[in-house]
Amino acid sequence: SSTKRVAVLEGDGIGPEIMSVTLTVLEEVSRYYDFLLKFEKAPFGGAAIDEVGDPFPPETQKLCLESDSVLLACIGGYKWDNLPRKQRPETGLLGLRKTLQLFANLRPAKVFDRLMDASSLKPEVLKGVDLVVVRELTGDVYFGEPKGISFQNSKRIGYNNMIYSEDEVERIGRVAFEVARLRNRRLCSVDKSNVLDVSQLWREVIVSLSKEYPDVELSHMYVDNAAMQLIRNPRQFDTIVTGNLFGDILSDEASMLVGSLGMLPSASLGNPNSPGVFEPVHGSAPDIAGQDKANPLACILSAAMMLKYQFQLNEASIAMERAVHRVLEKGYRTSDIMSSGKTLVGCKEMGEKVLEQL
Amino acid sequence: SSTKRVAVLEGDGIGPEIMSVTLTVLEEVSRYYDFLLKFEKAPFGGAAIDEVGDPFPPETQKLCLESDSVLLACIGGYKWDNLPRKQRPETGLLGLRKTLQLFANLRPAKVFDRLMDASSLKPEVLKGVDLVVVRELTGDVYFGEPKGISFQNSKRIGYNNMIYSEDEVERIGRVAFEVARLRNRRLCSVDKSNVLDVSQLWREVIVSLSKEYPDVELSHMYVDNAAMQLIRNPRQFDTIVTGNLFGDILSDEASMLVGSLGMLPSASLGNPNSPGVFEPVHGSAPDIAGQDKANPLACILSAAMMLKYQFQLNEASIAMERAVHRVLEKGYRTSDIMSSGKTLVGCKEMGEKVLEQL
Ligand SMILES: CC(C)[C@H](C(=O)O)[C@@H](O)C(=O)O
Ligand SMILES: CC(C)[C@H](C(=O)O)[C@@H](O)C(=O)O
Repeated sequence: SSTKRVAVLEGDGIGPEIMSVTLTVLEEVSRYYDFLLKFEKAPFGGAAIDEVGDPFPPETQKLCLESDSVLLACIGGYKWDNLPRKQRPETGLLGLRKTLQLFANLRPAKVFDRLMDASSLKPEVLKGVDLVVVRELTGDVYFGEPKGISFQNSKRIGYNNMIYSEDEVERIGRVAFEVARLRNRRLCSVDKSNVLDVSQLWREVIVSLSKEYPDVELSHMYVDNAAMQLIRNPRQFDTIVTGNLFGDILSDEASMLVGSLGMLPSASLGNPNSPGVFEPVHGSAPDIAGQDKANPLACILSAAMMLKYQFQLNEASIAMERAVHRVLEKGYRTSDIMSSGKTLVGCKEMGEKVLEQL
Repeated sequence: SSTKRVAVLEGDGIGPEIMSVTLTVLEEVSRYYDFLLKFEKAPFGGAAIDEVGDPFPPETQKLCLESDSVLLACIGGYKWDNLPRKQRPETGLLGLRKTLQLFANLRPAKVFDRLMDASSLKPEVLKGVDLVVVRELTGDVYFGEPKGISFQNSKRIGYNNMIYSEDEVERIGRVAFEVARLRNRRLCSVDKSNVLDVSQLWREVIVSLSKEYPDVELSHMYVDNAAMQLIRNPRQFDTIVTGNLFGDILSDEASMLVGSLGMLPSASLGNPNSPGVFEPVHGSAPDIAGQDKANPLACILSAAMMLKYQFQLNEASIAMERAVHRVLEKGYRTSDIMSSGKTLVGCKEMGEKVLEQL
């Protein structure tokens, strides 16, 4: 099989440590399952700001566009928080999404029985929770124009346009229906159509698209209610589809069900055959960077998502996931998911344990 | 003391039952504390749609504007869900907010020890939680123009303008700083200023306003993180201030901490001396309407907020709150908050128990 080029963006904070462990795991998996990956690193986020003054420099853009896939660790840190927005790490992330047209963000929240104690929710509420949030990622109030800060009657006003075209809704809707088909065939579309015109269009498009997916059960929920139901009874959800802003909020909320951000992977997908971006949900944790304390599992699970969604290497992907589960079963924990009676390990050692289980 | 005119909007579903109990309690309290209330009812929401085809008819508008305060039960129901947005109960609610210029919505979420079991969060996370969300209520993407659904390159687009002026932010900011002063002097402002221009203005205005409140400790949080932190560690919050849309989502999420919507009051305030609206957070529960099963406590607590915020009748307000707490201590529960070993009561009986405790 031909070599797959993977752009590797280590980013900031704990990024380099967790990425290094993840690449070791990927290499081992590629030997077993007989495929070839070529890793090429490039600066991104705060690191790139420090190096060249741009969170997503042209050479990194070029590398990403030429690669078959992008693996990203995490970006950001206090250090860059007070720069103007254009020079902030997050702006690099938004640029990456736009450049690669990553319109679909998939964030699974699957409760690991072994980690249920780490959540602030009761075990009986969490047991069996297995949902995925499909978030639109290149539209909505994140990118809508007009936007800015200007003057009206000599007072400042700030504004952003919350906007979707029917094409954008249909495109993310299709991804969501397809994802639901591979799961339990239940799709909940979240909007605020009792107030917003943009949500009314969203709902109309999803409803008419649903005729092509008669095997998927479609429901609708207002975003405020969804924020409640995710806590009240998260098991009711299978696949959730929503816009960029609501998805930002709800997927972070859903991540709390799992107890630790350190376990949550994500995939951001564009058009078929164009490179997707695979990254853990957690941030760059500057406070513990360089101390070999970070949890590499979310980054490893993101790499597993890459094998599945980008390269259709299902078996290899499942093998990686299974190795992660076994390591948890054996009681190994990084400090973020530590509980009494378990064995505390560092970032590198956690990687070795995963390798052992492969 | 002069008679205070209270416009009473029973609304839909369980509205009439819980309002009737609440008015009885208010009457009793007014006898003890020697003030006079005059209740005047008017149709609102679905009931008004059925009667006159308008969820907020002119005569109801007139009554509200002429009153000293408005007490609202709850509105909406499946029956009106598929009407065009202009004729929906929610549109009446938005109209009421706009007409009375109710720019500040206060939603306390205080955990009752006796009801902690009803929450899906663990007791150790909930213990001592006592926060209030101050939500801006007349601006943001709820009312921003331009908005609509139109055509662009022969495709439909839907759009709403997320917009704030510095005056609007300052006005709600002041309310929030004042509220924080009456509490633990910690204010967390929630925005999405890493992405949105409107949030950047929001943050700038709040920061410069904070110079007038050096005794209040101000912090900032992104909305996605706030959605997580409310679950991870809700005790960290005292007073939260945020925009209309984020407030809609976060206050509903926060309400889940308390376990039952049946316990949550709210106050919506406009300019000093203009009538505010006091209403429970829960909906109209059409499925149990007319069966004497509804929980009137949130409506009673909303009336208590009216005494405090509208009429500065602090003692009477505290007496009402205390009566509610005592009833819970004695083990009386409506079905929504029932747990084993407690005494199940209906809506009317719950009202009688509150009267006994006054
Ligand atoms: C960092 C920020 C721009 C980003 C977003 O809001 O999309 C983040 O919260 C996320 O969810 O990936
Ligand atoms: C019914 C709806 C218009 C309303 C809102 O979104 O403001 C409700 O959710 C609320 O929070 O009072």
